[in-house]
Amino acid sequence: MPRYKLTIEYDGTRFSGFQRQSNAYSVQQAIEEAIAQLCVEEVTVFAAGRTDAGVHATGQVIHFDLEKIFPAEIVQRALNYYLKNKSVAIIKAEEVDENFHARFSAIERFYQYVIINRPAPLVLEANRAWHLREALNIEQMQQAANYLLGTHDFTSFRAQECQAHSPIKTINQINITDQNDHIIFHLNARSFLHHMVRNILGTLRFVGNGKWPAEIIPEILEAKDRAKAGPTAPPYGLYLTKINY
Amino acid sequence: MPRYKLTIEYDGTRFSGFQRQSNAYSVQQAIEEAIAQLCVEEVTVFAAGRTDAGVHATGQVIHFDLEKIFPAEIVQRALNYYLKNKSVAIIKAEEVDENFHARFSAIERFYQYVIINRPAPLVLEANRAWHLREALNIEQMQQAANYLLGTHDFTSFRAQECQAHSPIKTINQINITDQNDHIIFHLNARSFLHHMVRNILGTLRFVGNGKWPAEIIPEILEAKDRAKAGPTAPPYGLYLTKINY
Repeated sequence: MPRYKLTIEYDGTRFSGFQRQSNAYSVQQAIEEAIAQLCVEEVTVFAAGRTDAGVHATGQVIHFDLEKIFPAEIVQRALNYYLKNKSVAIIKAEEVDENFHARFSAIERFYQYVIINRPAPLVLEANRAWHLREALNIEQMQQAANYLLGTHDFTSFRAQECQAHSPIKTINQINITDQNDHIIFHLNARSFLHHMVRNILGTLRFVGNGKWPAEIIPEILEAKDRAKAGPTAPPYGLYLTKINY
Repeated sequence: MPRYKLTIEYDGTRFSGFQRQSNAYSVQQAIEEAIAQLCVEEVTVFAAGRTDAGVHATGQVIHFDLEKIFPAEIVQRALNYYLKNKSVAIIKAEEVDENFHARFSAIERFYQYVIINRPAPLVLEANRAWHLREALNIEQMQQAANYLLGTHDFTSFRAQECQAHSPIKTINQINITDQNDHIIFHLNARSFLHHMVRNILGTLRFVGNGKWPAEIIPEILEAKDRAKAGPTAPPYGLYLTKINY
């Protein structure tokens, strides 16, 4: 029974998120329905990360098993055909051995968060970035971000609904670049808590616009209280860009 | 009578092009209607470049005169308000003297053309790039592009409907970058003929995929025959990015 690993891109705008839901259209449903058209099998796909409604992916990874053997290239082509105009595309398809698991084998997850910082509303990048008009101090945001690197209890940055066993996570990188009003946050960790990246962004924004000093971050971490951190940043600035195995 | 210079961004997808037409919705009409809402004046706006239907802009420049004096910042804010959800945004507004003309004062126009070169269909960049699946040799395309630099008779790259007095143009730069399957062509010249950038792209594509050698370019130029160059590349990969005055 062959197992396939797929790297996928999607525009999260019109999806209820990655995970299948009974009453809303998810990325998982779109892909599972495309697979059913390819091989008349009911399969379940597993993803490296369950992205929220509105969150995009350029490098999400999924896996699933099929009864029938198809060359990986045919799987890619056929699914792209069935996914036409569904805002999902298969960037790469590989046959992998049965020990591979998109979620549990992942050792590093990469996200990008895009802020466009200008007075004018977004046009070409509407639904693709967080639009902020206020002046933002990149250096202060980077200094604040540096306090989050390494292993911490991230309870203050965790959604109430988060189902992770432990709030302890290790952030390997938060690197902020700024080019032509596009402020891009590059984050990576083995794994993140639910809403963790967006809660970090909502907090860094308050440092960037001067509401809070960078030195507030250690206090927020120590408080282990979601109410101490900033609000959750909107989903449409967030991209799941790469998974390392 | 104050004259305003505006730098504007638009998503060309749903427009019939920049220039006003009697039977289709243009960028010019969208802006002129917004100005009429601001000051109940019927104004005509002039643009640095008349982009085709589907062509985008991140740095188009327009000018117009108003009877009434408004601070430039108010003009920007008000027009952005009236242009909400119309796929046009005013990035910058400045008051200029009456000698400034968006079209005639321009000394250099910058365009970018984006090709995404991968098997998978476009999702996040649908309508934002030309999707090509075939292998493209960047070095060969750059070599071909270099033959176009400088002053030439560009009759072979000119649309039949082109109204320019002379087919002689001077290209200052065609620089091709390639990152993560995104092949971006950076072109600039004082001015271009109608469809010239898209006809150049359609020709460079045939060099990139090996249909034609790079050395065909001098022959195409010399032929002064539109039929000798490649087909017109699609509009949705093209961006007017900057105007120098």
